[in-house]
Amino acid sequence: MRIETKTEKFDEPLHLESGRILESFELVYETYGELNEDKSNVIVICHALAGSHHAAGRYANEAKPGWWDKFIGDGKVIDTTKYFVICSNNIGSTFGSTNPLSIDPSTGKEYRFKFPILTISDVVRAQMKLYDRLGIEKAVAVIGGSMGGMQALCYSIEQPDFTDTVIAMATTAYTRPWAIAINKIAIESIRHDPAFKDGFYDPDDLQAQGLPGLAIGRMAGLIAYLSPELFNSKFGREYARTDGLYELFGRFEVERYLEYNSYSFPKVFDPLSYLYICKTMNIFDAGRNKDKLEDSFDKVKCNLHLISFKDDMLFFPEEMEEIRDIMIKLGKQDQITYKMVDSQSGHDSFLVEVEKFEDHVRDILKGK
Amino acid sequence: MRIETKTEKFDEPLHLESGRILESFELVYETYGELNEDKSNVIVICHALAGSHHAAGRYANEAKPGWWDKFIGDGKVIDTTKYFVICSNNIGSTFGSTNPLSIDPSTGKEYRFKFPILTISDVVRAQMKLYDRLGIEKAVAVIGGSMGGMQALCYSIEQPDFTDTVIAMATTAYTRPWAIAINKIAIESIRHDPAFKDGFYDPDDLQAQGLPGLAIGRMAGLIAYLSPELFNSKFGREYARTDGLYELFGRFEVERYLEYNSYSFPKVFDPLSYLYICKTMNIFDAGRNKDKLEDSFDKVKCNLHLISFKDDMLFFPEEMEEIRDIMIKLGKQDQITYKMVDSQSGHDSFLVEVEKFEDHVRDILKGK
Repeated sequence: MRIETKTEKFDEPLHLESGRILESFELVYETYGELNEDKSNVIVICHALAGSHHAAGRYANEAKPGWWDKFIGDGKVIDTTKYFVICSNNIGSTFGSTNPLSIDPSTGKEYRFKFPILTISDVVRAQMKLYDRLGIEKAVAVIGGSMGGMQALCYSIEQPDFTDTVIAMATTAYTRPWAIAINKIAIESIRHDPAFKDGFYDPDDLQAQGLPGLAIGRMAGLIAYLSPELFNSKFGREYARTDGLYELFGRFEVERYLEYNSYSFPKVFDPLSYLYICKTMNIFDAGRNKDKLEDSFDKVKCNLHLISFKDDMLFFPEEMEEIRDIMIKLGKQDQITYKMVDSQSGHDSFLVEVEKFEDHVRDILKGK
Repeated sequence: MRIETKTEKFDEPLHLESGRILESFELVYETYGELNEDKSNVIVICHALAGSHHAAGRYANEAKPGWWDKFIGDGKVIDTTKYFVICSNNIGSTFGSTNPLSIDPSTGKEYRFKFPILTISDVVRAQMKLYDRLGIEKAVAVIGGSMGGMQALCYSIEQPDFTDTVIAMATTAYTRPWAIAINKIAIESIRHDPAFKDGFYDPDDLQAQGLPGLAIGRMAGLIAYLSPELFNSKFGREYARTDGLYELFGRFEVERYLEYNSYSFPKVFDPLSYLYICKTMNIFDAGRNKDKLEDSFDKVKCNLHLISFKDDMLFFPEEMEEIRDIMIKLGKQDQITYKMVDSQSGHDSFLVEVEKFEDHVRDILKGK
């Protein structure tokens, strides 16, 4: 599989939904496979909150491959011998695309809190400019999970001529207060961490020393991304062998897992970026106003394929069933499929239980 | 209803499950109603993590009555014209019974981290010493929810001659990793708050200035105590009128709710006490070892009445169903009842949806 990582700079304004304008911006993106002559074999992959453009393959010295490597590759469901796959790092994200630590051209300094609030719609329109630059007019499919699924839904509504096939997984048409509440833990714990310095931290300090506030926010996320059943089967009541049961800070194995996976996070993820992305997710509403969801989904021309996960504790299956029901109510029953996967890894199932939905996706892509 | 608040001091050692000894301890407790002549009209109420001995009634200048005031009072289900109700503040808790900020008689200084880890069993044995002092040999019933339900289960197993009726609500026979993970957010956010000063804070400072770390831990609890459905119906996607949608720290109503109810918490609750109580809950295991749950419930002589709540996101109904199944397997089907309440307030339903189970409890208590 051929992997390329590139950066495109756009010296043209991106008009944001908030009314603000990004005068210029950069997108980092990866591609897998080869673009065919008539540029008709493109599949777009959209990433989630903590994801990046590095969706598949493994670079030298990398401990783990890209986040959807089970799904994308030569001979895999998203077959890179056939398709040219593009995954961009979302604007606002920490992995190289324009984000709160980028230089604001109007001041010559980092944006920090002057960075504008982005919506999912803005993120998608930035990606559209990339396809335009690459001369790509249509994609075979747009696929994403979680916040990537929000983008996928947004493509189906707002870019109705771009693709005939959208696959949205583990996501929602509008972020509900339960998910907003979980993000709130991160927002508050980042804000109150003195090392955050009210947003004027030195990023090098954080990479060296960590940032407990962001780690704790990540911890809340990790809990919501898994499920009670998975925790039971993975950890049970195992206690850390090194720790005393009657030590105040003695730990169960589940606590060690959470520590291990959250305290390392601030070394790779910027806290301002995390705050901005939480905001983008929180304000996502495909209907802009809940009463108008039907108006939004009425614009869908593509076939929309929804995949939910039974034990998803962040975006519950009912949230995707609502979209299915709206599509049917709109008379678009031939354009909608819905599958609930009998998952055991909660929200993260879209990443780790690929084997449970890959045949379904293969069927969707058949002949395309 | 006659309310009395008293303190009893015990100058006798409490041998703890950890092997440590509390040389002396105090219990603050409230009573409602009148003890009858043969001391046969006692009902024991056990409180939850953030609860106190103030279960019912309202003092002058109090904005809200005690935490189970819907349930306990003259003519209410726990009828204080008939019963003499006792609710003790658990040892370890912040509301007056011996806790980490009490004076360690061996040093003349506050215990702080020298306070011993307590188990639910220790908490219950401390209460038994109070009944002994009051000359109460038996209770009509022992009733509790959440951590109070853990105590109720512990009474049924370890104090089999104390009561014929135990009602345990919204609880579990052993704390599972999901609940431990939620407590972990509090543990980490308290530890990392500089105002916590590694446990050597001045309590007066915290009451004046708050402690974001404890507030954030409380926030994680508040989310788990409610339910996604309740959040939907209570908050929907309402946005704070004072805040801008495109302000980074602009808030949805659910965020305002969480701020309001968590930032006030450190003014009334001590962080060391919170850490110790989380530990007590985390290590609760009625079987001491999961494989031995049957051995524990085999000791139950009373009638054990379990009440779970359909949308409880902290201790799921399956956890109480496991106890019912064990009792049936042990041939104790005549000693067990189980009711799942069709609740809409999640874990907190045992506090706020009393009307949904009060008839059931009235039936249980009939003629007693």
